[in-house]
Amino acid sequence: MKRAPQPVPLAKSYLLLNHGPVTLVTSAHGERRNVMSASWAMPLDFDPPKVLLVVDRQTYTRQLIDASGEFALNLPCRALADKALAAGSISGRDLDGSDKFSRIGFETFAASRIAAPLVAGCAAWLECRVLPEPANEKRYDLFIAEVLAAWADPEIFSEGRWHFRDDKQKTIHYQAGGMFFETGDPFECREPAVQ
Amino acid sequence: MKRAPQPVPLAKSYLLLNHGPVTLVTSAHGERRNVMSASWAMPLDFDPPKVLLVVDRQTYTRQLIDASGEFALNLPCRALADKALAAGSISGRDLDGSDKFSRIGFETFAASRIAAPLVAGCAAWLECRVLPEPANEKRYDLFIAEVLAAWADPEIFSEGRWHFRDDKQKTIHYQAGGMFFETGDPFECREPAVQ
Repeated sequence: MKRAPQPVPLAKSYLLLNHGPVTLVTSAHGERRNVMSASWAMPLDFDPPKVLLVVDRQTYTRQLIDASGEFALNLPCRALADKALAAGSISGRDLDGSDKFSRIGFETFAASRIAAPLVAGCAAWLECRVLPEPANEKRYDLFIAEVLAAWADPEIFSEGRWHFRDDKQKTIHYQAGGMFFETGDPFECREPAVQ
Repeated sequence: MKRAPQPVPLAKSYLLLNHGPVTLVTSAHGERRNVMSASWAMPLDFDPPKVLLVVDRQTYTRQLIDASGEFALNLPCRALADKALAAGSISGRDLDGSDKFSRIGFETFAASRIAAPLVAGCAAWLECRVLPEPANEKRYDLFIAEVLAAWADPEIFSEGRWHFRDDKQKTIHYQAGGMFFETGDPFECREPAVQ
């Protein structure tokens, strides 16, 4: 990675997810670790910041989150879209104990507050601890978690704003069947005069 | 509205929210009705389709959803972004009984399964009924709802795919402070060969 991740103030960390990008969910327990892609992640609260994440009960990631009570949300840039698709298509469990990160070609670095690794080359990262809500987890595969630390590539996000310099830096949004949107042009609105 | 909304099969309705667009939440109870913008909405399940929505307890919309157990998610196009911003900035309660739709200049039409009106000129619409989860609602301002009916402007979304013909038709993603992104260029990925 060229640039060191810079911390994002916790009260601003919701801005990383507010526009609905795809995430890579990383998790670890003991010697095991995994990565999967997830579109169904969003903010739940500002300060202390909380997030929602849906994780199917049949995934290997679910086993690791259930066991550790932790996960990270990594926001892949368009340059990582192929690998993000692969992360959503193969299961770490099927790899027979081999490491899904190395199979796909993700480089990682250590998180600050949790055991799960972070994926290098992403635009931003949120380190999260599950707030146990067993009914939601069992009935809906829904996790509520507190954001313990947040980081961003300072060239892509700083001072509470995204500023993508080229398409490869853009965050991505999943449609289906291998089709994504990149995050599009920014624009500012003025509120119309209320009659 | 130029084109009649076309039904979206319920099992495909998650595709309307999968890329993380801004929504307008419409609600009604008795003679009262309201509209507010919300970025914190996403799919929770495929079939039967469910959605998650965060609605602050201090909003007028929250009163109407609590009373009716229903809401609609309307997906504004970029052409409606100014009005979407206004819908997130003023409260229907502050309007002293005046109708927030007419104040902002939203035209509406009737939903098929719920009392809340739908906002004309949007890209798509999801009619939702709350699945009561009082602990989530009270502790987290979080609602879980089933999608009863879904609709799309057939020029913008059909056969399970978005096909925006110009920027004004694009869905939008909120940053903060009046800044949005439009939904960007689509692209297709191939999975890299797994080593």
